[in-house]
Amino acid sequence: VQSDKETRGITLCNVGVTSVEIPLLIVERGGGVQTVQAVACLSTSLQAERKGAHMSRFMIQLSELTKKKVTPALLRSFLESTLSYNEADAAELTAEFKYFIEKQSPVTKHSAPMGYKCCFKGAIKRGGLVEKSYLTIGVVVPISVLCPCSKAIAAYGAHNQRAEIDANVILSRSTDNGVLWIEDIITALEQCASSQLYPILKRADEKLVTEEQYEKPRFVEDVVREASLALRTLPQVIGFTVKARAIESIHNHAAWAANRENFDSVTGF
Amino acid sequence: VQSDKETRGITLCNVGVTSVEIPLLIVERGGGVQTVQAVACLSTSLQAERKGAHMSRFMIQLSELTKKKVTPALLRSFLESTLSYNEADAAELTAEFKYFIEKQSPVTKHSAPMGYKCCFKGAIKRGGLVEKSYLTIGVVVPISVLCPCSKAIAAYGAHNQRAEIDANVILSRSTDNGVLWIEDIITALEQCASSQLYPILKRADEKLVTEEQYEKPRFVEDVVREASLALRTLPQVIGFTVKARAIESIHNHAAWAANRENFDSVTGF
Amino acid sequence: VQSDKETRGITLCNVGVTSVEIPLLIVERGGGVQTVQAVACLSTSLQAERKGAHMSRFMIQLSELTKKKVTPALLRSFLESTLSYNEADAAELTAEFKYFIEKQSPVTKHSAPMGYKCCFKGAIKRGGLVEKSYLTIGVVVPISVLCPCSKAIAAYGAHNQRAEIDANVILSRSTDNGVLWIEDIITALEQCASSQLYPILKRADEKLVTEEQYEKPRFVEDVVREASLALRTLPQVIGFTVKARAIESIHNHAAWAANRENFDSVTGF
Amino acid sequence: VQSDKETRGITLCNVGVTSVEIPLLIVERGGGVQTVQAVACLSTSLQAERKGAHMSRFMIQLSELTKKKVTPALLRSFLESTLSYNEADAAELTAEFKYFIEKQSPVTKHSAPMGYKCCFKGAIKRGGLVEKSYLTIGVVVPISVLCPCSKAIAAYGAHNQRAEIDANVILSRSTDNGVLWIEDIITALEQCASSQLYPILKRADEKLVTEEQYEKPRFVEDVVREASLALRTLPQVIGFTVKARAIESIHNHAAWAANRENFDSVTGF
Repeated sequence: VQSDKETRGITLCNVGVTSVEIPLLIVERGGGVQTVQAVACLSTSLQAERKGAHMSRFMIQLSELTKKKVTPALLRSFLESTLSYNEADAAELTAEFKYFIEKQSPVTKHSAPMGYKCCFKGAIKRGGLVEKSYLTIGVVVPISVLCPCSKAIAAYGAHNQRAEIDANVILSRSTDNGVLWIEDIITALEQCASSQLYPILKRADEKLVTEEQYEKPRFVEDVVREASLALRTLPQVIGFTVKARAIESIHNHAAWAANRENFDSVTGF
Repeated sequence: VQSDKETRGITLCNVGVTSVEIPLLIVERGGGVQTVQAVACLSTSLQAERKGAHMSRFMIQLSELTKKKVTPALLRSFLESTLSYNEADAAELTAEFKYFIEKQSPVTKHSAPMGYKCCFKGAIKRGGLVEKSYLTIGVVVPISVLCPCSKAIAAYGAHNQRAEIDANVILSRSTDNGVLWIEDIITALEQCASSQLYPILKRADEKLVTEEQYEKPRFVEDVVREASLALRTLPQVIGFTVKARAIESIHNHAAWAANRENFDSVTGF
Repeated sequence: VQSDKETRGITLCNVGVTSVEIPLLIVERGGGVQTVQAVACLSTSLQAERKGAHMSRFMIQLSELTKKKVTPALLRSFLESTLSYNEADAAELTAEFKYFIEKQSPVTKHSAPMGYKCCFKGAIKRGGLVEKSYLTIGVVVPISVLCPCSKAIAAYGAHNQRAEIDANVILSRSTDNGVLWIEDIITALEQCASSQLYPILKRADEKLVTEEQYEKPRFVEDVVREASLALRTLPQVIGFTVKARAIESIHNHAAWAANRENFDSVTGF
Repeated sequence: VQSDKETRGITLCNVGVTSVEIPLLIVERGGGVQTVQAVACLSTSLQAERKGAHMSRFMIQLSELTKKKVTPALLRSFLESTLSYNEADAAELTAEFKYFIEKQSPVTKHSAPMGYKCCFKGAIKRGGLVEKSYLTIGVVVPISVLCPCSKAIAAYGAHNQRAEIDANVILSRSTDNGVLWIEDIITALEQCASSQLYPILKRADEKLVTEEQYEKPRFVEDVVREASLALRTLPQVIGFTVKARAIESIHNHAAWAANRENFDSVTGF
């Protein structure tokens, strides 16, 4: 039936599967391998003359992906084989997952795992002799921000709150600068906050974090600008988007800011 | 088919519809009527000898409910007619919705609507000559809490964050004490925080709120205890549960506390 | 503090508020006015030399928006005044809400409200003498799809499932073709399914819907192509994206397909 | 500050941490160990005379839990040490996670991992000489149901849809009947559907599943009754709740049914 004749003349940019739950193997900066529980979306384009895609093929491919260590090279070859297998002109993969990093409190050195939402996305498109492709890594980094305005106007105290930096970086194809680890992005972004977050804080830690917050007030605008500067210094990154969102402690809504650099020109095909 | 013979001998406590989106008319304390967009769940018990319920009947009833002003008396008669219509021994209705209250900033008196998650729940059960029933109102009140420990140990500043109080109160059947308005519960609970939240805060307002937070530190434990005292003073309330949950600004998890008074004995039939 | 000197030299594309809960007044095709409960996001760009935006201004503006009937003309003037008020070069508004339409069963004519997720988005950008802007309406239409492949290969039956069409249309600035109502988009899209959904179905209705599903099998690819043809016929629409997603009844994942026509060229500034 | 005097005289049933993201090690029926990504909630009661709990202790305990293989015996000793460590009368732990099982298509034997939402919950309470405790395992099993009524009244076809069975079972303290594996509960519940779900289905598989669905129509009421019979046969289970919820393909709401056997009497302390 998928091979029936199709006469409506409409090319589709995406046909595939989504909300697919799969485990993935992610290589850690320290050399270990972490099993994560991803939600994946895989699709190809569909030519105007084809009625339907073979959906089971996408699932077979995703099933094979679960057995290998995910690297940029693996994702590129995965996208290429998706193109060939489905005789398509374009393919897209996204995989969202939580990634754990062991994190130590700043003074008493109590350690526990902390989870970060991450996303790998890759796309490839062939047209005539030209092939375009890109890979991005997305990370959501929970942070704390203390309001500069509140600190300035109040006789004492300053409202602060949980916030998050949501960044997506495009990877350079060059391997001259080595691997960009998820940990590298997180480390770079956590410096941009009023304070980082920690799983465990004892009294001496809490004192330090509270005072650090107060000494380093940040609007969401500041966080995005600092994060932009930080992402520019990563040599493997050729473009990015970055957002900050603060769950305001004095309002029932959130404040946010965003910046994009060299992003749409690379990903917009 | 629903009327086929059923031989497995199992009585079901609930059969019905859920995730039903309906508008509802809620009477405001000030006399106005607010249209809210509810998600409802309606069910009855099902006797062991009956194969199935008539699901369309539940939808017809909910559809009729959308045309009337919701009051405790209406909900009680709704549950009774659900029992009769479906020839059941027990019936349950829950309706979750957002309710808007116009809220003014404390100094400059800027006003805007603020949304509160609410829930009406009612249940009725007939057994022989006895009939039991109850109605509860649930409200989630977003607040701000400032950590007493952080304030005590830090040289300056104190971490604070968005939090919420989630309370469910059982209504007395007596009407001697007048109507209990959603607004009454919210007003009572907002006093229990380090500070209330506001839609609009200009500079003078922000100064006041920041200082108020700092002067009134509260653990989630304090919030729940203050909220318990506050709910006890509402004469129309005969039992309650109350939870507080703080979206910690220095952690990636939440702190919480809870209390229940005279709740399970009334609702647990 | 927002007026402090800013030296990092980074223009921000968005600064504003998000997750703002507000009621909105939507004009219905039939002439009535429906109060909906929206979640809004409002932002402007921020020049490199400015440290921060005045967040309370966004809330004041959104608060004023709640009092007027939302029309394309109102949204355009709202965006223009957001630009001026904040001395910005670009502004964006999105408002997501549920919209109810009374819907009748096909045979027995039982009627009840059915909810549809909708989204209004508008953006404006000024650069030198040029001003660009657009408005989009988004609607998510829940439908039913029956698998052509399953029907073709099985001796009897065919798997079918809840699905949804998620369309975003760009409104023409011309008013020659009259208003495009949310109801018009929904009506156009519901024809593209194996069957529409209904709040209430009695036996005679269920028979008709079941047989209609079986007679009109549709892949998600078919749904997107039919929806593309349908959207092209709406004279007020100058571009669109359309996705279909089926909550497969035989899989734990979803199948999806998508098309975009004249969309990125208009919205991508 | 947590050790300050407390005079309001209110005992709290829960004080602790929630939305805690941690990895856990789960032993599989086949002998392997699976790393899952859990969201945990841990709390103790708090005596009337104590102002606050030491929240960091809960995080230290959860951090230690991540390093051990989770078994009923481990969870029991974890709860006991939580009591002692916090000098509390009652403690509660819940951990929600996704668990993967490799699943084969019925005819062509294509295999891929399929994810199931699971939840471990444990509680303990000491009062005088008496100690009460329980452990439950919760599993959400996605299934397919085909409507008996639709099949009976339609000339051809029958609406069917994704559904889910949500069961919570209380474990017996006796080890005479061996371990109850998550896989055992899932296997028992998947038999109660019109059809199971599969990650990969090729044509021959899809034909079989479609016909099986059609031959085995089930209301949600039937699913709950069959599931109740199935859970009664598990020798390690001493009580349970079970719900079925169908994402109706012809409606925008869900149908549901529920049963509880020997549940509240065990867990309600």
